[in-house]
Amino acid sequence: MREELAIILNLFIMFAAAKIFAEIFTRIKQPVVIGELLAGAVIGAHGLNWVIEKIVVDGHTVNIGSINNALAELGVIILLFLVGLDTKMSEMVEVGRPAILVGLFGVIIPLGMGYALFTAFNYDTIRALFMGTAMVATSVGITARVLGDMGLIKHRVSRIILGAAILDDILGLLVLAMVSSLAKGAFNYVEFAVLLAEAILFVLFLTTIGPRLVGRHVHKLFDRLHVQDAPFAFGIILVLGLSVLAEFIGLAAIIGAFLAGIVLSEAKDSFDLEEKFKPLGGLLIPFFFVVMGTKFDIGALLNPRTLTVLALTVVVAVVGKMIGAALGAAQLGLKTALQTGIGMVPRGEVGIVVGTIGLSLGVIGQDLYGIVLGMSILTTVIVPPLLSLAFRSELLEPEPAAVEDSL
Amino acid sequence: MREELAIILNLFIMFAAAKIFAEIFTRIKQPVVIGELLAGAVIGAHGLNWVIEKIVVDGHTVNIGSINNALAELGVIILLFLVGLDTKMSEMVEVGRPAILVGLFGVIIPLGMGYALFTAFNYDTIRALFMGTAMVATSVGITARVLGDMGLIKHRVSRIILGAAILDDILGLLVLAMVSSLAKGAFNYVEFAVLLAEAILFVLFLTTIGPRLVGRHVHKLFDRLHVQDAPFAFGIILVLGLSVLAEFIGLAAIIGAFLAGIVLSEAKDSFDLEEKFKPLGGLLIPFFFVVMGTKFDIGALLNPRTLTVLALTVVVAVVGKMIGAALGAAQLGLKTALQTGIGMVPRGEVGIVVGTIGLSLGVIGQDLYGIVLGMSILTTVIVPPLLSLAFRSELLEPEPAAVEDSL
Repeated sequence: MREELAIILNLFIMFAAAKIFAEIFTRIKQPVVIGELLAGAVIGAHGLNWVIEKIVVDGHTVNIGSINNALAELGVIILLFLVGLDTKMSEMVEVGRPAILVGLFGVIIPLGMGYALFTAFNYDTIRALFMGTAMVATSVGITARVLGDMGLIKHRVSRIILGAAILDDILGLLVLAMVSSLAKGAFNYVEFAVLLAEAILFVLFLTTIGPRLVGRHVHKLFDRLHVQDAPFAFGIILVLGLSVLAEFIGLAAIIGAFLAGIVLSEAKDSFDLEEKFKPLGGLLIPFFFVVMGTKFDIGALLNPRTLTVLALTVVVAVVGKMIGAALGAAQLGLKTALQTGIGMVPRGEVGIVVGTIGLSLGVIGQDLYGIVLGMSILTTVIVPPLLSLAFRSELLEPEPAAVEDSL
Repeated sequence: MREELAIILNLFIMFAAAKIFAEIFTRIKQPVVIGELLAGAVIGAHGLNWVIEKIVVDGHTVNIGSINNALAELGVIILLFLVGLDTKMSEMVEVGRPAILVGLFGVIIPLGMGYALFTAFNYDTIRALFMGTAMVATSVGITARVLGDMGLIKHRVSRIILGAAILDDILGLLVLAMVSSLAKGAFNYVEFAVLLAEAILFVLFLTTIGPRLVGRHVHKLFDRLHVQDAPFAFGIILVLGLSVLAEFIGLAAIIGAFLAGIVLSEAKDSFDLEEKFKPLGGLLIPFFFVVMGTKFDIGALLNPRTLTVLALTVVVAVVGKMIGAALGAAQLGLKTALQTGIGMVPRGEVGIVVGTIGLSLGVIGQDLYGIVLGMSILTTVIVPPLLSLAFRSELLEPEPAAVEDSL
């Protein structure tokens, strides 16, 4: 098969499967994101095996899987950028205190409980720490998508959840840096202090000075540029550039993409940025969820011991995150604490990154990796129905702004 | 370097370079597409070498180059889809006769002259035939972009040029099928007849029945679908699906993409398809031209013999195409024949495909491949100033519709 044919055929199969499942899930009133994950699981290597991973052309191997991963990465970058674009810093500051508390407790408690669980299963300290770390970070991508699909993205609790989820991604990556150093034999205090300082500076600069700089100077800049559609090009350069910078520091690309959105959030209405970036999301975001789904191997989990470990991991992941998050939001009343707790449950990309790094360091094996993936999928699948219950009153009377802005 | 970092860094460098050169070329009133090709040549492996082709992660090699190629392929697919979307069949039928004549003569004469030239240089029959074939097909992508950048895309001559360029792509690929069979030792009449029949059926069906089917039934279909933004998703599925089908038959993906645009051209205004697909082009099209530029190695051409062969190849490519195209358009008067002839000169993707296949069959070596690439670039670079001259009167009084619709 020619390389071009394999690439486009693959994109066609993934996109069409995503949309078929999206159509079904819209009809049965379930979140589209789960449909897309399921589409991936069905067509992936562990299902029908319709997704091409590798082909051989003229004797050399073309790894189509990396192309899928790259498009998925672009998809989640655009998703987080769109979420950031929808996030005005003034509104984030309003929820700053509860978001920070929810983020902090939502990291500490799952990390501790995860560590305890895997120690109880007789795994050694470093394995147990890795599994605890994999249970730390709420998936901003999945959470944003679920809240968006439900039309709740502009709700105050959603802002707390997203702020806390971004924060716990950052904390999760810091914990990962620590645990990886430990796994390699020695914990490097200097390296870790540098990473910490860079992360704090990066986030603070882009959430405080960044939007103001853009708000003040970007109109003048665009007036001076002659190239066609400069604001859109500037947006793409900024989102890619900050994603690179975030990866370079040791954070994840999605954090840079989210911050790029925040930087441009004050300027977006003057330049139709949202209308122009949404179609990019429409093309690319489904690839992220389908590709994540393809990695799910239900067969590998089907033995009594793994199933038991998985079941308890999911219980600990759900209960730990709900307790942590609810503690952080306790001051806001029981209902808000409960909504926040549920909203924080889905794990995803950062957990999978932790698992992948653990695998490549040789700390965890395929069984534990499968458990990380299984936990990501299961915590995602159970949340939307719970969120529907917790947000019942809000869903009956949706805010007008919330409905039209679903992603 | 982590795989994610390498991928996004690469995209950032290519996109930023494209936009910097686009800004410069807009200021010096030169076509943006040449700026983007030049950007690729400057940052590519034969220039600053800033584009990452391969990285090694944990012992296994990740081919970042395939990711770049895949994005470039997606870019040219979106470009041709947008051109097709802008092409109403009623308008194509109007220019059908001249477009067919221009396409036919524009294939026969460069093929003959190219074959004669390389025979004169003492290459054997099969090599000479391959080089002639590489000189056949006008680049629809480059031509559409140049005419679009100049605000001439809706002009009648542009429609003739684009129709003829699509036709000569198809003819070029048919000739390639023939020549490849010859190179493999035996020409298979049955295979070739099947390819010919499939190509004719594919194009005829999609240009006649396709748009009517869509015009009649697509509103009902979209009313029945529950998934969000069904027309946009349908557009993506159609463009990917027809690209796959075109590749599968043995034609190029871009022909399927162009036809997908034509199929949806009658329905586009009801569903804002153009507004939603243009941002996809804004992100992806620059990758096509930058990646094409990265493949240009000026160093390999810098020896007297190769430079002589290249110079004569370019002269034959320009003169042959202009004579052929002008012959085809002779009935329309000298000025139109001249404009058409110049507009048909740029070669590109199909020539490069021919070169790549010749290289993989072992028919041509790196020197002839370099000449194919050099010819593509040089025929593209010289055309815009010539087109500006030939279209001087039209450019002084642009049609209002033409200016706003530049791609």
